Amino acid sequence: MTETHDDRAQDHVEYSLKLVLDMIARQRLVESLIHKQDMPRHELIESLVHKQNLNELAKKLDELHPADVAYILEALPPEDRLMVWDLVKAERDGEILIEVSDAVRESLIATMDNRELVAAAATLDTDEIADLAADLPKDVIQELMESLGAVKRAQVESSLAYDDDSVGAMMDYDFVTIRADVTLETALRYLRRLGELPSPTDKLFVIDRDERLIGTLPLKRMLVHDPEAHVAAVMSDDPVTFHPSDSASVTAQAFERYDLVTAPIVDPNDRLVGRLTVDVVMDYIRAEAEEDMLQAAGLREEEDLFSTVWKAAKNRWLWLAINLCTALFASRVVGAFEGSIEKLAALAALMPIVAGMGGNSGSQTLTLMVRGLALNLISKENLKRLLVKELGIAVLNGLMWGSMMGIITYLLYGNPHLALVMSAAMLLSLIVAAVAGYLAPIIIVRLGHDPAFGAHVLLTFITDSMGFLIFLGLATIFLM
Amino acid sequence: MTETHDDRAQDHVEYSLKLVLDMIARQRLVESLIHKQDMPRHELIESLVHKQNLNELAKKLDELHPADVAYILEALPPEDRLMVWDLVKAERDGEILIEVSDAVRESLIATMDNRELVAAAATLDTDEIADLAADLPKDVIQELMESLGAVKRAQVESSLAYDDDSVGAMMDYDFVTIRADVTLETALRYLRRLGELPSPTDKLFVIDRDERLIGTLPLKRMLVHDPEAHVAAVMSDDPVTFHPSDSASVTAQAFERYDLVTAPIVDPNDRLVGRLTVDVVMDYIRAEAEEDMLQAAGLREEEDLFSTVWKAAKNRWLWLAINLCTALFASRVVGAFEGSIEKLAALAALMPIVAGMGGNSGSQTLTLMVRGLALNLISKENLKRLLVKELGIAVLNGLMWGSMMGIITYLLYGNPHLALVMSAAMLLSLIVAAVAGYLAPIIIVRLGHDPAFGAHVLLTFITDSMGFLIFLGLATIFLM
Repeated sequence: MTETHDDRAQDHVEYSLKLVLDMIARQRLVESLIHKQDMPRHELIESLVHKQNLNELAKKLDELHPADVAYILEALPPEDRLMVWDLVKAERDGEILIEVSDAVRESLIATMDNRELVAAAATLDTDEIADLAADLPKDVIQELMESLGAVKRAQVESSLAYDDDSVGAMMDYDFVTIRADVTLETALRYLRRLGELPSPTDKLFVIDRDERLIGTLPLKRMLVHDPEAHVAAVMSDDPVTFHPSDSASVTAQAFERYDLVTAPIVDPNDRLVGRLTVDVVMDYIRAEAEEDMLQAAGLREEEDLFSTVWKAAKNRWLWLAINLCTALFASRVVGAFEGSIEKLAALAALMPIVAGMGGNSGSQTLTLMVRGLALNLISKENLKRLLVKELGIAVLNGLMWGSMMGIITYLLYGNPHLALVMSAAMLLSLIVAAVAGYLAPIIIVRLGHDPAFGAHVLLTFITDSMGFLIFLGLATIFLM
Repeated sequence: MTETHDDRAQDHVEYSLKLVLDMIARQRLVESLIHKQDMPRHELIESLVHKQNLNELAKKLDELHPADVAYILEALPPEDRLMVWDLVKAERDGEILIEVSDAVRESLIATMDNRELVAAAATLDTDEIADLAADLPKDVIQELMESLGAVKRAQVESSLAYDDDSVGAMMDYDFVTIRADVTLETALRYLRRLGELPSPTDKLFVIDRDERLIGTLPLKRMLVHDPEAHVAAVMSDDPVTFHPSDSASVTAQAFERYDLVTAPIVDPNDRLVGRLTVDVVMDYIRAEAEEDMLQAAGLREEEDLFSTVWKAAKNRWLWLAINLCTALFASRVVGAFEGSIEKLAALAALMPIVAGMGGNSGSQTLTLMVRGLALNLISKENLKRLLVKELGIAVLNGLMWGSMMGIITYLLYGNPHLALVMSAAMLLSLIVAAVAGYLAPIIIVRLGHDPAFGAHVLLTFITDSMGFLIFLGLATIFLM
């Protein structure tokens, strides 16, 4: 690693992790030596080495950004994680707890007593406290709320009152407001008096006497305009705003669409109530994408890489149980045709192909539907058109892959009737799969659920059962 | 919709779409009337109505943000899309082309001639031209490059030279630099002379005589510090920087971790070569998440919701072909046991359960491994630990679900030997699935590929074939 690389972000954090791992390894070695040798004189020396080593590690941790410490904590197995956590200065506990993933946060909170938790949370901003609250014991929250001033307490309470997926739960209260009738010079003087601006700040919010938002003043404009100009003349009077009750996901899309860094949040009377920042939006987008990925595999929640077998297994059971039920149902469909299978065992070998191709092609339809729904691209006007398109693709694929499987079946079994049944079953089950992939997300969204979790289970259930039913049914009618 | 809602982002864009749809419907009605009646006097009146209608639509489009026009274009079927596209002012073509999705962009570019394309691209920034270039015909690119100034051409060429997944391909050149030895007052005067700052700008880049980056000056600090202070005293001298060759995904993680709005990009000698902005990073994160989702369902590229059946089918074939091959292989495994199945058709009904549970539980392991690898949380030190954990979960689940399926099998078929074989097969195939889910992403990443695409196919191949082999093999050994 050369000198010039040292200040680069990723090298920096990976290098830090390596350093911490080395220090921990050294520490463990010293500890094992202490345990092995119990001569009093050595003990003294080694306990000094021991102490010095820990001090060095603590110093290193102090220098790191809270997000980097969080990354290191996540990458460490439980024993090492707790050792490092103990070395972190108490006043940094809060900012680090906010940065770690939910599962790891839980493991860290479990090691802290109420007093430590209240102290850690008290160092945080209102919106961060609200984030953390979900993971804190009830009595800690109560104690914490009592320790806050009236304004901050009201803010935390209002943040907690909003739905997790709403703007209200994501907004902060760190905005700087200004009146429209002052000059930029006055505004600049006011900012200098403030001494520090919340991070990130790309604009001030311009309000009237009733706290109603009437515009925004980008810092950029403050810098390039004549200081004698009035705020009203320089401000943007048509800013993009959101309501606390707006959907987080729709708002995140708007942030992206309009390349926003911060945006004012107003109530229905246009009164300023908070602000939303791009870093929170970015965290939300990442978390949503991750959640979709985890949910698609049936992981109910984020899992600590090093959580216990028992805990991890519980996280995965619901999904496996649901899948066992759908598999059992499909199995009973097959069971109904055991007579046919006894006469022609080739059916057993061919049936998974029909079900599998249905499942795969249905999931392509489903994925595009889920994406279209998420991006608000699917309207009443184009719903029918999409169905026609997906059916067209299913027929095309059904004819193509069906003929191919017909030929392969004939080559394998030399039975032209079986080959025809195979082709027809492929065509029919791809059509059924297209309809299922098209309808499943629409139905699940209409029922108010997240299609990432339920739609795929529903699809597999239909494509498996129907695939078996169509193939074995046709075979029983035409071949038996 | 009440007055106060009008300026909110999402309502705004959905309302605009509805308006455009209404206008198009009216337009189509007028067109059909013109076709039906061909009395000369009516014609004149209707062609006026026709014109007026189009003018109104064009005016509405003019008022919209380019990203909103892009959204409307994506939500419209081809005929309407092209009608709207024709109404968009030529000078806005470039900024809108940059905003639409790849598939829709392709459909729009196909309707434009070379002259229009060169004119549209010429209105864009360097990094945007580089983005667009991938979709432009070769001769248009050449013509375009010739029309650019030397500096801009060199920038486009260098952007194009970087790998798509590197910082170099994402950076822009719109940074404002300043010297460390001037006062804030001088810096402010300089900014006022510039008149406008690139969007977003949260900091100036401080360079020395050799264009080497020595710090950054946040606008916030310029505003709150004494104008007499020197830049050197106020700047941050340890900024987070990146290299053009850095991985885009790792850099995006750093942007999130450090809550950056903009960051300087430097060459290995610390010379400033570009800058990266949070809006580009956010687009990247969203695009990556979407690509993962599409790839997981085997869609090779983003699909226009309204693309032709033929085009959409081609996009999906590779995946279906691969899955047909793996399904055929699994089918041959079953085929090898046709003798056993003829004797005991229950095997055919039960075997999909074994394979299915293996596939589901393996995909849980796989998803957590892919996530851990993406977040850089998996190191040599903890690899073994993770395997032990996943094996532990597999054994626990195998014993639990295996016993349950044993009981169900006994209840269904009254055959205790078959029940035992079922239990043992469940246990074994969950263990195999855990190993496969653990190894598949590691192998695919080592081979330099994206695990989102290949790992799931590999896993299903193993869990299906091995599930059938284990269950039918055990049954043949112990029951026949």
